[in-house]
Amino acid sequence: MSGLDTPLTPLRFLGRAAEVHPDKTAVIDGQRRYTYAGLSDIVTQLAHALRGSGVQPGDRVAYLASNSAELLVAHYAVPLAGAVLVAINTRLSCDEVQYICDHSAAVMLVGDAGLLRELKNAKLESVREVVETPSVDGDYVNLPGTIRYEELLCRGSDTPIRWEIDDETRTIAINYTSGTTGRPKGVMYTHRGAYLSSLSQQHHQNFDVYTRYLWTLPMFHCNGWCNPWAVTAASGTHVCLRAVRGDAMWALIDAEQIDHMSGAPTVLTMLASAPEAHLLERPFTIATAGAPPSPTTINKIRALGATLLHVYGLTETYGPYAVCEPKPEWHDLDGDELSRRLARQGVGMLTADHTRVVRTAPDAQGQLVDVVADGAEMGEIVMRGNLVMKGYYRDDSGTTDAFAGGWFHSGDLGVMHPDGYIQLLDRAKDVVISGGENISTIEVEQALMSHPAVADVAVVGVPDEKWGERPKAFVVLASGVLVNEEELVNHVKGRIASYKAPRAIEFIIELPKTSTGKTRKNELRDAEWGRAGIRIQG
Amino acid sequence: MSGLDTPLTPLRFLGRAAEVHPDKTAVIDGQRRYTYAGLSDIVTQLAHALRGSGVQPGDRVAYLASNSAELLVAHYAVPLAGAVLVAINTRLSCDEVQYICDHSAAVMLVGDAGLLRELKNAKLESVREVVETPSVDGDYVNLPGTIRYEELLCRGSDTPIRWEIDDETRTIAINYTSGTTGRPKGVMYTHRGAYLSSLSQQHHQNFDVYTRYLWTLPMFHCNGWCNPWAVTAASGTHVCLRAVRGDAMWALIDAEQIDHMSGAPTVLTMLASAPEAHLLERPFTIATAGAPPSPTTINKIRALGATLLHVYGLTETYGPYAVCEPKPEWHDLDGDELSRRLARQGVGMLTADHTRVVRTAPDAQGQLVDVVADGAEMGEIVMRGNLVMKGYYRDDSGTTDAFAGGWFHSGDLGVMHPDGYIQLLDRAKDVVISGGENISTIEVEQALMSHPAVADVAVVGVPDEKWGERPKAFVVLASGVLVNEEELVNHVKGRIASYKAPRAIEFIIELPKTSTGKTRKNELRDAEWGRAGIRIQG
Repeated sequence: MSGLDTPLTPLRFLGRAAEVHPDKTAVIDGQRRYTYAGLSDIVTQLAHALRGSGVQPGDRVAYLASNSAELLVAHYAVPLAGAVLVAINTRLSCDEVQYICDHSAAVMLVGDAGLLRELKNAKLESVREVVETPSVDGDYVNLPGTIRYEELLCRGSDTPIRWEIDDETRTIAINYTSGTTGRPKGVMYTHRGAYLSSLSQQHHQNFDVYTRYLWTLPMFHCNGWCNPWAVTAASGTHVCLRAVRGDAMWALIDAEQIDHMSGAPTVLTMLASAPEAHLLERPFTIATAGAPPSPTTINKIRALGATLLHVYGLTETYGPYAVCEPKPEWHDLDGDELSRRLARQGVGMLTADHTRVVRTAPDAQGQLVDVVADGAEMGEIVMRGNLVMKGYYRDDSGTTDAFAGGWFHSGDLGVMHPDGYIQLLDRAKDVVISGGENISTIEVEQALMSHPAVADVAVVGVPDEKWGERPKAFVVLASGVLVNEEELVNHVKGRIASYKAPRAIEFIIELPKTSTGKTRKNELRDAEWGRAGIRIQG
Repeated sequence: MSGLDTPLTPLRFLGRAAEVHPDKTAVIDGQRRYTYAGLSDIVTQLAHALRGSGVQPGDRVAYLASNSAELLVAHYAVPLAGAVLVAINTRLSCDEVQYICDHSAAVMLVGDAGLLRELKNAKLESVREVVETPSVDGDYVNLPGTIRYEELLCRGSDTPIRWEIDDETRTIAINYTSGTTGRPKGVMYTHRGAYLSSLSQQHHQNFDVYTRYLWTLPMFHCNGWCNPWAVTAASGTHVCLRAVRGDAMWALIDAEQIDHMSGAPTVLTMLASAPEAHLLERPFTIATAGAPPSPTTINKIRALGATLLHVYGLTETYGPYAVCEPKPEWHDLDGDELSRRLARQGVGMLTADHTRVVRTAPDAQGQLVDVVADGAEMGEIVMRGNLVMKGYYRDDSGTTDAFAGGWFHSGDLGVMHPDGYIQLLDRAKDVVISGGENISTIEVEQALMSHPAVADVAVVGVPDEKWGERPKAFVVLASGVLVNEEELVNHVKGRIASYKAPRAIEFIIELPKTSTGKTRKNELRDAEWGRAGIRIQG
C-alpha cells in the first residue's frame, strides 16, 4: 500500500456514523436506546476498560451473550482495544464452551447471567475474569466469581480512540464452526475481510440511513453475517431481539417499524405461521440462508408482502458470500418459476470473487476443473478472495486442507446453471449414493415440503441391500393435518425422478437441530446406520 | 495481505456484471447499444489489441474523446491490458494536449476525429500510433496519420482475460488537473482507490440494477468521478451524451428513462432553464460538485422534482471525497434552511477518511491543528486515505508538498460546523483579504445569485487603497431582466455583513470558464490587477 492508504477496518463505520448522525438511534434493546454518539461513547469506554483490565493487543475476548446491546458494543469495543472477539454460540453445552475458551485461550469471558450459570462446572484455564452483563431490564444476578459489566466499564475512560487499525490483515474475530460433527474450528476474520463483507451486505440488502434492522439472526453466528458493521455503515438502526419467537418478532416489527431482518428458513416459518402474522405495510426485506428456502416458504413470505433475498455462505466466508441476485426480467415469471429461481444460491457478492463448482478430482496438473455449466453435473462449491477467512486458528493443517488448489473447499455439493448461478444440492457428507447415482437430499426435501401437510422434513441415506443406499425421510406434519406415507411418496414421484423418492417415511414430532437451525442429519443417520452397521463413505 | 486476499480492482465490477446480467443493457451511445456480455467482449478484444500493438504493462494510453462508448470501454480495456488510462480534457488547446502526452509519455492516442484534427500541428514524441474512433453514427473521417478504431480492434482476440490484477496499488489512471493557473499535474489513481471510491459513489448516489445514468459529467474529468466503474458495480445502464445541451439532456431523460446524472452547477442551470424542462415523473438524483450550488439553483432543481446530492472533491481525490449527507430530520426544514444545509460540502464518504479543516500554521511539533468547529474559523481543508491519490506522476516534490504533515492539502479554505460538516468558503488563492478580514468570494456570489436578476456571477478581490482589497462582482444578467448596481449591492447587504458587499459590479455577457465549468477567476483578477499593478499574496 502507498503511504497514505488507510487500512480497511469496520471500526471506521461507527466512527463515521457517530460523526454524521450522532443523534440518530443506533441501538434499541428493550427499553434502552442508544444514539450513535452514545454507542460511540460506550464503545470507547469499554475499549479503555478492556485495556485497563490487562487485555493486550491480539488477546481473545469471549462473549456468551444473546442479541443484546452489549454484544453489539463488543463488535466495536473489542477490536478498538486491539483484541479479537470470540462470540460463542449460546446454545452450546458447558463442555463445548469450555473447549472454545480453551482453544482460543480467551483471557476474559463476558456474558448473560443465565448462560454463564450453565458454566458453573467448567474449568476455564485461560480466562482471568468473567463479566456478567445486565438483563434486558438492567438487572444483575451477581453470579459468584463474576464482576458486573458496569464495574468493568468503570475502569475505562472517555478519551477518544481513533477508529483505526495499523494493519488491515489483523484478526478482528474468531468464529467457531457449528459443524454437525467433530470439534468446532476457529475461523479467523480480518479487518479487511469484515470491511469488504460489510459493504456487500449493505449493497445487496440495501441498508440505508432509514433501515431498521431486527436482530433475528444470532449475532454470534458469523458475527451476524457482518451486519453489526454493515447496518452501522449505513447509519441504520439495530433492534435487538433476545429470544426469537413469533409474537416477539411481530411486536417489534410493528412497534419499531422494522424493514429488514435475516434468518434461517426456520425463522421464516416461525414468522409466517405466527398468529400475529399480517400483511406488511412497508417494503420489507428478509435475507435467508443456512438451507435453501423451499418454494413453499418463499410463497408464504411473499404472501406477507416481504421480499426474500436468498444468500449463501459458511462460517469460513464471513457468512454470505453468494447472493441469488434478482434480475429485472424475473418480474415476468410466475410464482412457481420465480420460487425455483430464488431457491438457487446464485453468484458471488459485489466484493466477493467468482464462485466455482469443481470436479472432485483435479486434472493431471493438480488444477481444479470446473463442472459443465449445465445445471446437472454435480461438483464441490469453492470460493476465495477477500470474503474468505484468513485460516483456522491454531490449525495449519486444517487450513491447508481447506485451501487445496488455492480455493476454499466448502464441502457443499452443487451444480452450475447455464446462467452462471450455482445451486447447492447437498452437503458432501449428506448426499445419498444410490446405485451409483447421487441423490440430493435437499431436492427430495423440497419435493416433500411442497406438500401442504409437511411442516418440516429431513432426508438421509439409509442402508439398502440392493442399491447400497436409499433416501429415508423424517417428516414433521403441520398441525391438524393427516397424510399417509403412500400419498407423500406419490407426491414426490410426481415432482422428481422416481428413484429419488424416499424408500421410507417416518413421522416425528420434532427434528434434531443445531443451535443455528440446521438439522442434525448425522444424528438421524447414525441411528439408522447403528441399526444396520457402520456406514463407510468414500 | 494473506495469501488468498484478492487485490481490489474495479475490473472485477465488469466481470461480475457480465456474469450476473449478461443480457442487460450496459451502454447506450446514440443508436448503439451494448449488453454487459457485449461490453465485456469488446473490452477483452481491445485489451488484447492494445497488447498486440506493443502496449506494455504500465504504459500510458491517452484518450481524447467525448462521452462515448469508446471512452467507457477504455476505462476497462486499458487497465485490463495492464496499462494506464490518461483521459484528456477535450477542451484543452493543442499545446496543452501535447504537454500531457509528452509528460505522461503516452505510447498511443485514441480519440474523436474532430478533436484529433485540432492536433495537426502537434509533435507527439512518445505516441507511436494515433487511433480515430467512430462518430456516434459509426462514421470515420480517416484523418491522415491515424488508423481506424476497428483496425485496432482487429488485432485483438476474444480469449478471456481474468478481471484481476496482481497488485492493488498499481496505477490504473493518470488524470491531469485542470488548474486555473500553471501546468497541469498528473494525478495517479490506484486500482484500490478506484475500487473503494466506486463503492462510495454507488452507496451515496444509490446506484442499483435499475439505475439509468446519463453521462452529463465528462468522463475525462476525474474518470467521471469513478462512475464508469460505480454504475457498472451496480450493473446499471450508462447512457452516453456527447454534447451537453439542454434539449439533448431532456430528450434522453425522457426517451431513456434516466434517473441519475451529475454535473457542475452550470449543467444544473442548463437543465433547469431549458425550454424542455418539466416535472420529472420518477425519483431522480443529481449529484453536483465543482462549486457549491447556490440556494437558487437548489430550489430550481427541487422544483423539477429531483433530489440534489452535493458532493465535494478534487482531481486528487478521485472526484468526490465528501458528501453533504442528508439527515432524516432535514425533512422538517423549510426550503431556505434546507438550501443552506445542502450548500455545505459535508463529511467524508463511506470509504473515505475523516475530513479536517486545519489552521495554516502547524503547531510547534509540526502537527496540523484543527480549527474550532464553530462554522466561523477559516482553515484549509485536508484529506487522506484510500480516496486520495497515490501522488503526482513524475513530480515527487509536488507530491511531498501536497502531503505536508501527512494529509493532502486541498488548497480550499473552509470552516467546520459544530455538527462536523465542512463548508468550503473559497479557494485559497481566491479569498479576498480586506482590512485584515477574510472575505469568501463564494459567500458573496451566493448572496448575489439569490437575486432573481442574476444568472451567473464571479467575485474577485480588486485593489483598494484603504482596505488593501475589496470584492468586485462580475454579473451575468438573466435574459430580459434589468437591475442596477445599487439594487444588487443593497440586496447583498441585506443578506451578509456590509463589509463583504462588492465595491463595484460589472455587468458582462459571459464569464470565462474552464472546460469543467469552473470560472477562470484568475483571468478576471489579472485584468483588474493589471490595471493596478502586481497583486502580492502572502
